[in-house]
Amino acid sequence: MPSISERAGEVPPSPIRKLVPYANAAKARGKKVLHLNIGQPDLPTPSVFWEALQNAQLKVLDYTESGGLPALREAYAKFYEEIYGIHLTPAHFLITAGGSEALLFAFLTLLNPGEEVLVIEPTYANYISLGKAAGISLRAVESSIENDFKLPPPSVLESALTEKTRAILICNPSNPTGKLYAPNEVCQIGEICRRHNLFLISDEAYRDYCYDGQRFFSALEIPDSESFVVVVDTLSKRYSACGARIGALISRNLDILQAALKWAQARLAPPTLSQIGGIALLSLPREYYENVRETFQRRRDILLQGLRDIGGIECASVQGAFYLMPRLSIGDSDAFAQWMLECFDINGATVMIAPGTGFFTQPEKGRQFVRLAYVLDEPYLEKAIEILRAALNIYAREHVPIL
Amino acid sequence: MPSISERAGEVPPSPIRKLVPYANAAKARGKKVLHLNIGQPDLPTPSVFWEALQNAQLKVLDYTESGGLPALREAYAKFYEEIYGIHLTPAHFLITAGGSEALLFAFLTLLNPGEEVLVIEPTYANYISLGKAAGISLRAVESSIENDFKLPPPSVLESALTEKTRAILICNPSNPTGKLYAPNEVCQIGEICRRHNLFLISDEAYRDYCYDGQRFFSALEIPDSESFVVVVDTLSKRYSACGARIGALISRNLDILQAALKWAQARLAPPTLSQIGGIALLSLPREYYENVRETFQRRRDILLQGLRDIGGIECASVQGAFYLMPRLSIGDSDAFAQWMLECFDINGATVMIAPGTGFFTQPEKGRQFVRLAYVLDEPYLEKAIEILRAALNIYAREHVPIL
Repeated sequence: MPSISERAGEVPPSPIRKLVPYANAAKARGKKVLHLNIGQPDLPTPSVFWEALQNAQLKVLDYTESGGLPALREAYAKFYEEIYGIHLTPAHFLITAGGSEALLFAFLTLLNPGEEVLVIEPTYANYISLGKAAGISLRAVESSIENDFKLPPPSVLESALTEKTRAILICNPSNPTGKLYAPNEVCQIGEICRRHNLFLISDEAYRDYCYDGQRFFSALEIPDSESFVVVVDTLSKRYSACGARIGALISRNLDILQAALKWAQARLAPPTLSQIGGIALLSLPREYYENVRETFQRRRDILLQGLRDIGGIECASVQGAFYLMPRLSIGDSDAFAQWMLECFDINGATVMIAPGTGFFTQPEKGRQFVRLAYVLDEPYLEKAIEILRAALNIYAREHVPIL
Repeated sequence: MPSISERAGEVPPSPIRKLVPYANAAKARGKKVLHLNIGQPDLPTPSVFWEALQNAQLKVLDYTESGGLPALREAYAKFYEEIYGIHLTPAHFLITAGGSEALLFAFLTLLNPGEEVLVIEPTYANYISLGKAAGISLRAVESSIENDFKLPPPSVLESALTEKTRAILICNPSNPTGKLYAPNEVCQIGEICRRHNLFLISDEAYRDYCYDGQRFFSALEIPDSESFVVVVDTLSKRYSACGARIGALISRNLDILQAALKWAQARLAPPTLSQIGGIALLSLPREYYENVRETFQRRRDILLQGLRDIGGIECASVQGAFYLMPRLSIGDSDAFAQWMLECFDINGATVMIAPGTGFFTQPEKGRQFVRLAYVLDEPYLEKAIEILRAALNIYAREHVPIL
C-alpha cells in the first residue's frame, strides 16, 4: 500500500479549523458555540449581491474567462479609483477564488521551489500551508508582544534576508495581530525590496478595517513600485461574503499577471455566480464601508477592554483587521481551546478560539497565544468575554503546572 | 527589478484558452465564433439548481467547512449509490473547487516534489500545468491514432515506470481522445498499481458520457483497491454547470482524505452557493442522465461523420466524453487555429478549436492534432463542420508546404 507524500504529512492543519470536529461534537450535545476562531463576519451580505443574482437570469452556468469576468475587473478598477483613490486599469486585476488563491498564484509566479519569502511573525496560518503547497519556505522575523507587535526595524528585516529570499510578504492590517503599518513603514519595506531586488506581496484583505480615524496606506501607493508590488485582495471580509470565494491578484507589472494567468487557466475559472454578485458589491457607496468600520471599532473596544478587565492577559494595541492575539497565562492554548469545547460551558454555551501555535513557523512560540476574531454582535461578544473569564479561572485551578 | 519564477516561465498556457484574445478580437470585429475549443456544454443547467438558490434564503454568505457542506457530501454518497451503484459514505468525499482542485490536492497529497505520475498521451492539457504547480513531473506513454488511441498494453505501461513514479493518472473516458477504457483495462491498470505500489488517480469527469450502450467501469469498482484508488469527480460536465466550480476528491482511503483536508483548509472552503445548488443537482432522476447522453451521442455521430466526409482527416473511434482528437493534414494546428479566428469566416462566422500541441508533454507531437468539443446544438455543429471544411481547403491552398 503506497503512503501519502511527506509534504502532506508535514503541512500543519489549520489552527482556525482543526478543532471543528470538537465544535461539531459539542453542538451535537446541545452546546451553543460562540465562534471567535474564524474571521467570518456576522453582518449580512449586502442585498445588492442577492439582487444581482436574481437579475442575472442565467440559463447555463458556464465558465468565465480564467482571469475573471471583464465586467468584474472593470468594477474592481472603478472601485479602487473611487473608494481608495488608487488609479488602476482592469488589466491590473486577475480574479481569483478568494485571497487564498491569489496568494498561491503569487507564490507560484514569483518564487521557484525552495526559495524563501520573508514574513512577520505571528503570521497568518495559511501562509505556511499555502507556502508548503507551492514548495517554498517561509522565513519569519518576529514581532513581539512586549514591543506591541510593532514592525521590526528595517535593519532586522534586512539581516534576515538570505540569498534564497525572493519576496517579502506582509499582511496589512495584520491577521492575526491587528497591527496597522504606517505609510513610512510600508515605504521602508518597499525600500528594502527595491534595494535587494525582491517582490513585495501585500495581503490587504482587511484594509477596510482601520480604526481611530487612521488612513490605510496600500503597497500600491509606494512611489515607483510598479515593477515589484503585488497586492492580494478579497471580497470576503469587505462584504461579509467569505463563501463567495472571490478575490484578486493586483499588480501594475503586467508580466506578473500574464504569467499568473497561466496558473489561472490550469484551474479554468473562478465561480461565476459569485463574480456576478461581486460586481454589484464593488459599486456600494462609501457609507457602507464607514458603517462597517464603526461597528467593528466598537467591537474591538469591547473585546480589548473585556480582556484587560479579566486580568493576567497580555494584549497589544490594535489598529486594524478584526483580530486580537492575546497571550494567556495558560500552559498550552491548544489544550485550552479543546477543553473549552469538550469540557466547559456556562449555561450551555462555550467559546471557540484559534490556538496560537499555528500562527508561528515554530509552533512552540505560539503556545501561550490565542487568536480571537471579534466577528459577533456586541451582546454575544460580552457573553464570550464572560465565558472566557470563567474558563480561564477554572482551567488555571484544574491545570496547575507541575513545577 | 526582480524577475518572475522560472516555473512560471515554463508552465505552458492553456491550449484551450490561450487563443481567447484572438476570439475576443474577432467578436469585437463582428464575427460569430462557434466554440469547439472548450468543454463547456451548451445545455441549460437544470432548473433545480436555480430553485435551490432561490429557496436558500441566505443572509450571510459564509464559509462552509473546508471539506464541503455535510449535506453535499451526503448527497454525493447517495448519488453514487443510487445512480452508479457504488457504495460510499459521505466521509469518502472531499468537496473541491471543480475537478481541477481535486487533481491539485491529489498531486500534493500523493506525490512529493520531483516525483512522477504516469499519464496516457495525448493527455488533458491542464494535467501538465497543475503538475507544474505541484512541482511534480508527468511521464507520458503514447496512445497512437494509428492504434485508435487504444490504451497501451500493460507491459508498455510498466516499462515506463521509474523509481520516481508514485501514481498512474488516467482520464476515463478520455479528454481529449474520447476513448473509454473497458473494465478489464481499468483492472489491469489497478493491477500494475498494486504490483508496483502506486496510487491510481482516475479522472472520471466524463463518466456520464458513454455511448453505444457501453457501461462505465469506475476505478472505484476495482476489487480490493480501497487503499490506492483516488477518483476525481466534478459537477461541471454532468450538469452543464462548469461555472459552479464544484467537484470532489473521492477515496476509500481516509488517510488520503484527511491529509488532503489540510490543503483544503489552506484555501478555506469551496464556493457556498454552488454547493447549495449542487445538492439539488445530485438528486436529479436517472432520466436526466439518459437524455443528456442521447443528445451527445447524436452530436458525436454528426461530428465524426462530418469530419470523415471532409476527407484527409484521421479520426479514431470515440466511445465517451465529448471530444474528438483528429489529425489534420496541415502543418501546424496552432497557426491554423489562430488563422481561423483572425483571417477566415463564412458569412461572418468561424470556428474556434484547441490546437493539439498542448495535449502532449512534448508539444511537437501534437502539431497536427486538434481537439474538438461537440458542445453545440446540431445545427451549429453542422455549420461548424461546413466552416472547417472550407477553412481546411483554403488554408491548404494558401499554406502549401515548401518541399
